[in-house]
This record gives sequence, C-alpha cells and structure tokens, in this order.
Amino acid sequence: MTVLGLGPMGRALTHALLRAGHPTTVWNRTAGKADTLTAQGAVLAKTAAEAVAASPLIIICVLDYDAVRAILDPLGGHMKGRILVNLTTGTPERARQMAEWAAENNIGGYLDGAIMTPTTTIGHNSAIIHYSGPEDIYMAHKDTLSSLGGTAVHLGTDIGRAAAYDVVLLDIFWTFMSGYIHALALAKAENIDARELASHAQGIIGILPDIMSAIADQVDEECYPGDESNLVSAAAGMEHIIQAALAHGLDTSVLASANAIARRAINAGYGTDSYARLVETTRHSAVRPG
Amino acid sequence: MTVLGLGPMGRALTHALLRAGHPTTVWNRTAGKADTLTAQGAVLAKTAAEAVAASPLIIICVLDYDAVRAILDPLGGHMKGRILVNLTTGTPERARQMAEWAAENNIGGYLDGAIMTPTTTIGHNSAIIHYSGPEDIYMAHKDTLSSLGGTAVHLGTDIGRAAAYDVVLLDIFWTFMSGYIHALALAKAENIDARELASHAQGIIGILPDIMSAIADQVDEECYPGDESNLVSAAAGMEHIIQAALAHGLDTSVLASANAIARRAINAGYGTDSYARLVETTRHSAVRPG
Ligand SMILES: NC(=O)c1ccc[n+]([C@@H]2O[C@H](COP(=O)([O-])OP(=O)(O)OC[C@H]3O[C@@H](n4cnc5c(N)ncnc54)[C@H](OP(=O)(O)O)[C@@H]3O)[C@@H](O)[C@H]2O)c1
Ligand SMILES: NC(=O)c1ccc[n+]([C@@H]2O[C@H](COP(=O)([O-])OP(=O)(O)OC[C@H]3O[C@@H](n4cnc5c(N)ncnc54)[C@H](OP(=O)(O)O)[C@@H]3O)[C@@H](O)[C@H]2O)c1
Repeated sequence: MTVLGLGPMGRALTHALLRAGHPTTVWNRTAGKADTLTAQGAVLAKTAAEAVAASPLIIICVLDYDAVRAILDPLGGHMKGRILVNLTTGTPERARQMAEWAAENNIGGYLDGAIMTPTTTIGHNSAIIHYSGPEDIYMAHKDTLSSLGGTAVHLGTDIGRAAAYDVVLLDIFWTFMSGYIHALALAKAENIDARELASHAQGIIGILPDIMSAIADQVDEECYPGDESNLVSAAAGMEHIIQAALAHGLDTSVLASANAIARRAINAGYGTDSYARLVETTRHSAVRPG
Repeated sequence: MTVLGLGPMGRALTHALLRAGHPTTVWNRTAGKADTLTAQGAVLAKTAAEAVAASPLIIICVLDYDAVRAILDPLGGHMKGRILVNLTTGTPERARQMAEWAAENNIGGYLDGAIMTPTTTIGHNSAIIHYSGPEDIYMAHKDTLSSLGGTAVHLGTDIGRAAAYDVVLLDIFWTFMSGYIHALALAKAENIDARELASHAQGIIGILPDIMSAIADQVDEECYPGDESNLVSAAAGMEHIIQAALAHGLDTSVLASANAIARRAINAGYGTDSYARLVETTRHSAVRPG
C-alpha cells in the first residue's frame, strides 16, 4: 500500500494499515511527518513518484482536491494501471472530475471515498468510511480497506455518491459545531463553564434522533403541520438567543442567518407551519416565495 | 392550578396536570383552544383575572415575555400572594425583569422555568424542565411540578439561571436544526431522500458527545491544539459544502457565516489551532483579532 498525505488523517490511516500487517509506503509534501510511522515499519519514499511506484494500491488523503491534483497531475504516467482510492473530502462534482482524470491517465481503477469520523476512530469499530465507484474494484480491495476500521459502506457505482453523502452529513456536522462553539461562548458570558454545558448539552443530543425522524417524514411527504411547534415560536426562540448573545457583545451572524430564513417563510405566510417547511425556503433562496 | 396560555405547550402541560389528578383552570387569549382539555375535566375561565383568582399556583407558558406581560400587566392586583411559575422561553435579562415585576406586584413567589424538550415529552420520563428562583418556593411546589414529567432541575436561586441555560442549549438546538434543514435541502438536490439522510445522520449524532467533551476541555483550559484536526482543514470542509449547495442554487447564508468566523481566526494566525479556538473569535466579534 502507498499512502500519500500525512496530515492527521493520513497518519491515522497509515498507522491502521501497519497495525493490520500491510507493508506501507508513505509520502508527504513537507518532510518530518513520517517519523513515528517509519518507527512502526512504514517506508518513507523520497518523492511522490517513488511512493506511487512502490504499490499497486494508492490511498491519497490530503486537504482538498486541489491538493490531490497538485500531487497527482505531475505523476500521470506513473499512475497507469494502479488503483487509486481518494479519501480526501470534496464535492460530488470534484469526485466526477477526478474519475475523468483517472480515466484519461489510464488508472487501473478509481474509488472515491469519504471518512465520516475523527482520526481517533480510524482502525477501530467506530470508524465510518463511505466509498463509491466501480463495484469490482471495491470488492477486490474491500479486505484491505477494512483495516481502516469500523463500518465501510459502498454507496454504489455513481462516483459522486460518497462525496454527496459527505457534504450533506458534514453540513449537519459543521453547522452543529458552529452552534456548539457559539453556545460555549454564550455560556462563558453567562458564567456556565464549558464542561458543565457539555454535560447538559449531551442531554439535548438525546432528543435529536426522534426530532430528525419526524422532520424527515414531513419533508418526504412535503407536508409541514405545525401543531406541536411552529415557525413563529421557533423564530421567537432564536431571537431570544440572539438578544442574549448581543447583550454580551458576541458575534451572532450564524443564528441571525438561520432566523432570517425562518422570517422569510413567516413573511410568505407559513408561520403556523412546522420548522420542516424551511427545507422549501432553503431551496428557493433566489426566488423568494410569496 | 391555573395554566395561562394554551398553545401546544400550554395544552401539553395542562394535560399532564389533569392526568396527575390536579384540578386545573385554564385560559387562553383566543378562544377554542380548550375543548379537549375541558372534556378531560379542566375548568375554562372566561377571563385571565378569573383564571388567576381560581388557584394559588399560576403557570404561564406563552410565546415570549412580551406576551407574558401583555397578559399579566393588567392583572397586577389579582396576582398578589400567588405563586407564579413562568415556563415561557426568554432571556436571563427578561427573567430578572419579571422577578422585579413580581416583587413590585407583591406576588407570593416567582419561579422562572424553561422547558427543554418537545410537547410530546411532557408528563413523561423524557421531559427536561429547568427552574430557578427561591429554593423554598421550589421545594414547596416540587411535587406538583413533578407531574409535568421527567427530570426537573432547580438550577439555583439566581432567577436568570434557567433562562441562561435555556438560551445556551437552544443556541445548540436551533443552530443544529438549521444545519439539518439545510442538509435535507442539499440531500434532496443530490437525490438522497430525507429518511435515508436521517438514518445516516443519526450515526453522526453518535460521535458528537465525545467531540463535545474534548472541545469543552480545551475551552475550559483555554488551550486549542490542532493536532488531530485544524481550522484550515475545517474551513476547507465548510467550503466544499458551500460549493455543493451553491451548485444547486441553495441559500448558503448560515454556513457561510460560520465559515467567515473560521476564516477570521485563520487570518489572525490561528489556522493550525483546533476548531475550539473559535470560542475566542466569537467572543471578539467587534474587535477583530490580529
Ligand atoms: N482530521 C480529521 O479528523 C478528519 C476527519 C474526517 C475527514 N478528514 C479529511 O481528511 C483529509 C485530510 O485531513 P487531515 O486532518 O489529515 O489534514 P488536512 O489539514 O486537511 O490536510 C493536510 C494534508 O494535506 C496536504 N496538503 C495540503 N495542501 C497541499 C498541497 N497543495 N499539495 C500537497 N499536499 C498538500 C498536507 O501536506 P503538508 O504536510 O505538506 O502541508 C497534509 O498532508 C481532509 O480532506 C479532511 O477533510 C479529516
Ligand atoms: N412547542 C414546543 O415543543 C416547546 C418546547 C419547549 C419550549 N416551548 C416554549 O413554550 C412556550 C409556548 O410555546 P407553544 O409551543 O405553546 O406555542 P407558542 O406559539 O410559542 O405560543 C402560543 C401561545 O402564546 C400566546 N400568545 C402569543 N402572543 C400573545 C399575546 N400577545 N398575548 C397573549 N397571549 C399570546 C398564544 O395565544 P393565542 O392562542 O391567543 O395566539 C398561545 O397561547 C414558548 O415560549 C416556547 O418556546 C415550546
């Protein structure tokens, strides 16, 4: 195996491969990232070309697809016939472009993947990694890839599928994270310490799955009854948070944007609908409803 | 008991009180909300004054504190000596103003509360309700209030405490919700249906508690090592989502705001710090660091 990219995730992947007994060659743009890995048996290649020449299966995991191309473009010929598994985060469109690049460069097979869980999960049961691309290529390398740990899911042959799930799930993740960070800042201003907030917040996390299912049902049915809680009430709730945050001089841009979407739906006459109605509002950003 | 306000939550509270065998008088600004409740034994008062006169313990749960004041201001004299439990969502500042109002109007005791869970939890184990205010008043009515279900927590005598926890936890909740709604819109554009997304997203929910604890530790220690994942990587991730959403013409204002905060920290030289660093950035919105 060859791993290109030794950021935190590339190192975690290499470590898991080594632990599973796979001889692994590594390379990174800047030096000094491979020390603990070579101590564990990894071979450090001097150049990306040398790293690619060392193995039939190449895993790349770097910052973004621009970085992937910066590494692979100069190597075109060396990649011929090899299997490329790209575990870099990106968009469905970039995944499709990458597959075209792979075909033009006579790559033996291209799988696009997305790692859904932190570095600490890699090689363990809690890892979740999605793949998409040719089924035969996935099946041929399934066992090797399983050393990366946990749940490996092949989402189908549409090469953009792993990235599509990735952007959608990361949309939830990063928006959640921005809310959590903001709440920690607000908590601090209200003399609630972070660990205390975290333990209460974990209680709130417990109620999310049921709420998420209920909203998903409404969205699939395109029917948004607000009997148990409606948009006017939600907007009032968001405004309290914004007021409390402004009183402490905090940035309120994230929730103010969320509230503006709710206000747009209320102004269009949907105030007594449920929050799930906002999926429609989000889809019609340019053309304002009503 | 008297319950003022028969929105979805006021009705759920009344239903739980009746189920627990408490004689309950109800009132709502507009008529027609009490039918199922009177069928279950609730007494419908003709005016708010009559409703207040009927019981020593008054629970109010309406849209916001302006609505509370719109109902209670004209009743000042009638409230004398009674216990007021305000379960309306609001800010710590509004809770403090309400306590002043209660003192000026010779209320027998004022508890400020916040309901942390949906209507469907009320009267059941999964309900979480926070209270703050005088301990003796809370202890005297603890048993009655326990009929509202689940976990009742007295957060202390500082009257603003329940509202402080409420705004902080709702900050997480509503920001999460806005991310979930946006992800549903993006999923639809990528031909992923809502129920399918919900089931995958519930997997992501599972990894949040550990991440939250790790971030809380960094925030309490004011030390933000980015060894496992850093701000540059986070911003790149957010940009993929924004690009994918823009490609489908979706509104991207929420995540763009979150990303702008990350970019501000990166520009100030914190790119290799962890995401938790943004708590500081959020606290210094006006004065840009760097
Ligand atoms: N860390 C996590 O918890 C996590 C979780 C899930 C998914 N991921 C994904 O995994 C991927 C890698 O993440 P990471 O955490 O390891 O760190 P990262 O900061 O996203 O990426 C760092 C890696 O990218 C390389 N790189 C950046 N720009 C480059 C360029 N122009 N040319 C060549 N190499 C370049 C870096 O090389 P240098 O060392 O030379 O700068 C380093 O190897 C990302 O797509 C990330 O979204 C990470
Ligand atoms: N629903 C939930 O899942 C949930 C969960 C946690 C906390 N809460 C909180 O519980 C409170 C009540 O929520 P809700 O869901 O029952 O519905 P809501 O839509 O927030 O409030 C509706 C109630 O407020 C009354 N109201 C609004 N403006 C008024 C005014 N100016 N004067 C008098 N009454 C006024 C309404 O009377 P009319 O019928 O006359 O309009 C109705 O009784 C809110 O603070 C909410 O944040 C709700």
